[in-house]
Amino acid sequence: MVDHDVFPAAGRPASLPVVRWDEPPEGPVLVLLDQTRLPAEEAELVCTDVPALAEAVRVLAVRGAPLLGIVGAYGVALAAARGYDVEEAAVHLAGTRPTAVNLGRGVSLALDAHRRASAEGAGPREAAAAALRAARELHRQDAEASARMAEHGAALLRELLPGGGYRLLTHCNTGRLVSGGEGTAFAVVRNVHRAGELRRLWVDETRPLLQGSRLTAWEAARNDMAYTLLPDAAAGSLFSAGEVDAVLVGADRIAADGSVANKVGSYPLAVLARYHHVPFIVVAPVTTVDADTPDGGSIEVEHRPGHEVTELSSPQVPGAGREPGTGAALAPLGTQAYNPAFDVTPPELVTAIVTEHGVVSPVTGDAIRDLCSRSRQVTNR
Amino acid sequence: MVDHDVFPAAGRPASLPVVRWDEPPEGPVLVLLDQTRLPAEEAELVCTDVPALAEAVRVLAVRGAPLLGIVGAYGVALAAARGYDVEEAAVHLAGTRPTAVNLGRGVSLALDAHRRASAEGAGPREAAAAALRAARELHRQDAEASARMAEHGAALLRELLPGGGYRLLTHCNTGRLVSGGEGTAFAVVRNVHRAGELRRLWVDETRPLLQGSRLTAWEAARNDMAYTLLPDAAAGSLFSAGEVDAVLVGADRIAADGSVANKVGSYPLAVLARYHHVPFIVVAPVTTVDADTPDGGSIEVEHRPGHEVTELSSPQVPGAGREPGTGAALAPLGTQAYNPAFDVTPPELVTAIVTEHGVVSPVTGDAIRDLCSRSRQVTNR
Repeated sequence: MVDHDVFPAAGRPASLPVVRWDEPPEGPVLVLLDQTRLPAEEAELVCTDVPALAEAVRVLAVRGAPLLGIVGAYGVALAAARGYDVEEAAVHLAGTRPTAVNLGRGVSLALDAHRRASAEGAGPREAAAAALRAARELHRQDAEASARMAEHGAALLRELLPGGGYRLLTHCNTGRLVSGGEGTAFAVVRNVHRAGELRRLWVDETRPLLQGSRLTAWEAARNDMAYTLLPDAAAGSLFSAGEVDAVLVGADRIAADGSVANKVGSYPLAVLARYHHVPFIVVAPVTTVDADTPDGGSIEVEHRPGHEVTELSSPQVPGAGREPGTGAALAPLGTQAYNPAFDVTPPELVTAIVTEHGVVSPVTGDAIRDLCSRSRQVTNR
Repeated sequence: MVDHDVFPAAGRPASLPVVRWDEPPEGPVLVLLDQTRLPAEEAELVCTDVPALAEAVRVLAVRGAPLLGIVGAYGVALAAARGYDVEEAAVHLAGTRPTAVNLGRGVSLALDAHRRASAEGAGPREAAAAALRAARELHRQDAEASARMAEHGAALLRELLPGGGYRLLTHCNTGRLVSGGEGTAFAVVRNVHRAGELRRLWVDETRPLLQGSRLTAWEAARNDMAYTLLPDAAAGSLFSAGEVDAVLVGADRIAADGSVANKVGSYPLAVLARYHHVPFIVVAPVTTVDADTPDGGSIEVEHRPGHEVTELSSPQVPGAGREPGTGAALAPLGTQAYNPAFDVTPPELVTAIVTEHGVVSPVTGDAIRDLCSRSRQVTNR
């Protein structure tokens, strides 16, 4: 079941948390900031079970690689705390968005904690508490990882581009809305902004779902950054004019060879960046690396419904729903659309991958392997 | 003054003409198919004077390089026929869209005919008739040029890519809606489609004004083509997957060195095409070449209002107008947008320029000069 609490965006001075666990008398719930309603309003989505949560994931009310991991873990904890079938809930949730490796990771993490506790003789309540502890620990670790990525990324920018005054181009949304902390690529931007080194943030609008216009512009405005929105196809003009010092994006999955799956539109930016000798930097936690995916060609790319391209849906269009045929028509009736959610950038086009455990550059399979073993040492300490 | 005659798109079997001169009892008018209302409805815009016509040009109710030339010429004829100040009308009209070289050319053509007739002692009515004759001749020539470009372009495709079954990617709108005939790049697509050689037309949606979604998809559907719409940023995925055999676009201005100004988003496609060894073909009449613009850097690029990016306007959003603040908000209030109408592709990224007088490949300043002198010989014959 899902419920909405709506607050006009102007009515609340600060921002609502993007995800929070709550335990009202009616039983535990997972409360999400409904990102489909931004920037018009801040609305909370109250999920009492995994089907509701999976639907929120499917419609992108909650999105962003690290945050999906956290939500996956909380989802398992929610199923456990509510007495649902935990194994079934885990399978349901993990299958909702196949390209996002963190979602499955978060689900597994809480599921393992639950299984371990059960195997050690814990009752349902204690096992549910173990799953919740695992989710909370992932949430905390993710916030810490954001802070470290921000520092590593800012240091890399200073090394690559001495002198500050950065004009940075970003795609999609990678800030507080995707993370337990301040995000990935956007956390780096925020770090240099706070140090007075950001001259301008160029924000790709990121069609078809406009995460750049709706979410990154909103986060940039909240952080008092100098930012400018652009149609995705106008990025080429900025490169031509020498107006981009570096591109910073997140990642949804990084293959063992360093290939990066990220929001569709990232790959064309990487090609443009290479053509113009501009660094193309990926910022993502180590958990985004999937050693089981050997290369870019093995990454399963999610294809989303065509009506996201042929129609504009709520909340931009008053009265429109999210189902096909209810939005404002942008194309003739019956038009088919090609709508991959992600594209894959090969490692040779990626200048550096910034993680919480340091920077990989140049990006090679060996360097990725080293990073992962280093991160395991850190985690096991 | 401007007036609207609206017909539901489904109510008329064939399409209305994109531009027609009419002489009702109240006086001569220029009637335009209002392209901002497509694909929802076919509405005619009846212009009785140049300010109304200039406004139609400004809001892109009428657009497309060759068509703007025709409209510019008819506009001068309209001012003359209605007894307005012809010189003043010409200056007003030509300044409406600075990057589109054909607009100014069309205006000059009719203005010269008017001046010549006046200088030779013609009265106002005869001089107006001379301007109208010049506009009609341009209209006829343009239709003929379309047919020739279609043949030359199809021959080039067959030469570059023997075997047919073409998967062609196009950007913006270049068909019947931009021309006195069947258009430029789209006319080539239509030619190979009629020959049974088109496997698929990939249509970039072309943000911010969605000429691909609204107009090219509409033209493709009317021509029974196999077509698929995509967000501009998804083109990279198609190239990666080897799904694009050639890119075909139009041009708004071609500099003396062969640099091509076209709808923003063309340059990123040219870079992607080069990276993937796919031909990037520009289709445009010789009149698009501007010998007075030496190179790409000298092309003045029109920057359009930011609200085209931050808001979605009519006709997609019912009740919305075309002025700032009346559309559906896509970004937080106060967001600034970078909205160049065009970008510039350097000649080294253009595989060929297809004109009515033949194909230029490789694209060099010398080859462009040769083409123009050849075309002058043809015209003077």
